[in-house]
Amino acid sequence: MSHNETTSSQEMALAHVLADAAGEVLRARFRKPLNLERKGDSSPVTEADRAAESAMAALIRARFPDHGIFGEEHARENAESRWQWVLDPIDGTRAFLAGYPTFTTLIALCLDGAPVLGVIDQPFLRERWTAEAGGVTLLNGERVRAQARRLEDAVLATTSSDYFTPAQAAAYAKLRARCASAIAGGDAYASAMLASGCVGAVVDAALKPYDYCALVPIVEGAGGVITDWRGKPLTLDSDGSLAAACCPEAHRAMLAELGKQ
Amino acid sequence: MSHNETTSSQEMALAHVLADAAGEVLRARFRKPLNLERKGDSSPVTEADRAAESAMAALIRARFPDHGIFGEEHARENAESRWQWVLDPIDGTRAFLAGYPTFTTLIALCLDGAPVLGVIDQPFLRERWTAEAGGVTLLNGERVRAQARRLEDAVLATTSSDYFTPAQAAAYAKLRARCASAIAGGDAYASAMLASGCVGAVVDAALKPYDYCALVPIVEGAGGVITDWRGKPLTLDSDGSLAAACCPEAHRAMLAELGKQ
Repeated sequence: MSHNETTSSQEMALAHVLADAAGEVLRARFRKPLNLERKGDSSPVTEADRAAESAMAALIRARFPDHGIFGEEHARENAESRWQWVLDPIDGTRAFLAGYPTFTTLIALCLDGAPVLGVIDQPFLRERWTAEAGGVTLLNGERVRAQARRLEDAVLATTSSDYFTPAQAAAYAKLRARCASAIAGGDAYASAMLASGCVGAVVDAALKPYDYCALVPIVEGAGGVITDWRGKPLTLDSDGSLAAACCPEAHRAMLAELGKQ
Repeated sequence: MSHNETTSSQEMALAHVLADAAGEVLRARFRKPLNLERKGDSSPVTEADRAAESAMAALIRARFPDHGIFGEEHARENAESRWQWVLDPIDGTRAFLAGYPTFTTLIALCLDGAPVLGVIDQPFLRERWTAEAGGVTLLNGERVRAQARRLEDAVLATTSSDYFTPAQAAAYAKLRARCASAIAGGDAYASAMLASGCVGAVVDAALKPYDYCALVPIVEGAGGVITDWRGKPLTLDSDGSLAAACCPEAHRAMLAELGKQ
């Protein structure tokens, strides 16, 4: 099997199939009694999480047996491949457990470490954001765009300030004070809402590749800017910090605040 | 016009009309460009908030002209009446602004200060929880029930620990450490999810009557327990603290932790 250096519709076609499969697993379990377990990092994990990832991994193996698979729940496969599928079956496990429909399934494809395809899927609401590098972001097939705003007129979203170091928390507090509104929670849904024009800025830290890779094409394809806190592009090897904004001006202003930590 | 000492279907019939009217206003404005303003407490308020409350107030005046109206956005009316409609057109303004479908419209009717009818309405998802004092809680007409759990197996929800005093924050941290999972955000949606069996405990502070009155019949009608942090029933005159749990045992354990502050 040969590939161009950019993704083509066959990869996006598979991504839709993966999202469909994960969504079927998650819809059947959402708002149903679940076993709560604790991993080493004490985040709750459910059987739903593992089942959805297994379903996606099986489909990738069948279609692109040489591609890598890098998921939250299972061991990496084909880690040496230039093509890596990066999967988070339930981003926002806490929201999933609480019954809030703001958890998402994240699917990314990276080429040489750079995200070239992203899907953010909310299976309960049947909202699916998709984008390929260099293309436009679609929500259920319709183009969406970030809304350019000054930070002073923007909603700032973060998953939780619990994940910040003290220095990061101080930088976040300054940024938050500049913004019109701030909201905690939402995880990747915050970046989807940035792509849809509601959220103006997203800041997070201590993320894993499966938390952020899918967001890159989605935010960029909507006209937003997404980097780490130093302004570097997000790749498989990034430091886990994320700074996304609705427009270049807001992103520059955001990095100026975050760079003070 | 005369009233029995308990609510009857005419009040619930009006409550549905109010929720329909507010929902129409909010659906038309959700995820659309909004003017962000700041009130004295710096929370963002939108024109949607005021328009939805005005629509509900007009309907109450027309149907029960002697009843009191106590909303977030406008001056109180008929404050001396034994019957008080307590309205929060958008509970979770931050979620509304961010495009998250976890904001709700809250409608309560209080008799002599005690909530006797409650509605939690999510107009974008068209989810409506309803209950009258002494009755059962319905979600879109279907009975829902809290799921009895130990705190150790429960999801704990709070709107934001930003609203806690240092002593309250310390008590919350202890409670949080006992629970299986914790989630920030959600506002009244957390109590709706308690009534639907997902969330096990909700703790909040610094609430206003329009933030909590509607939750009382909803939580109780689903088999849960809802009081202030001292275990006292929630009325129009409560201190703004809220401790709700999925069952009496979890509630007792919760109050034991919160009582330490």
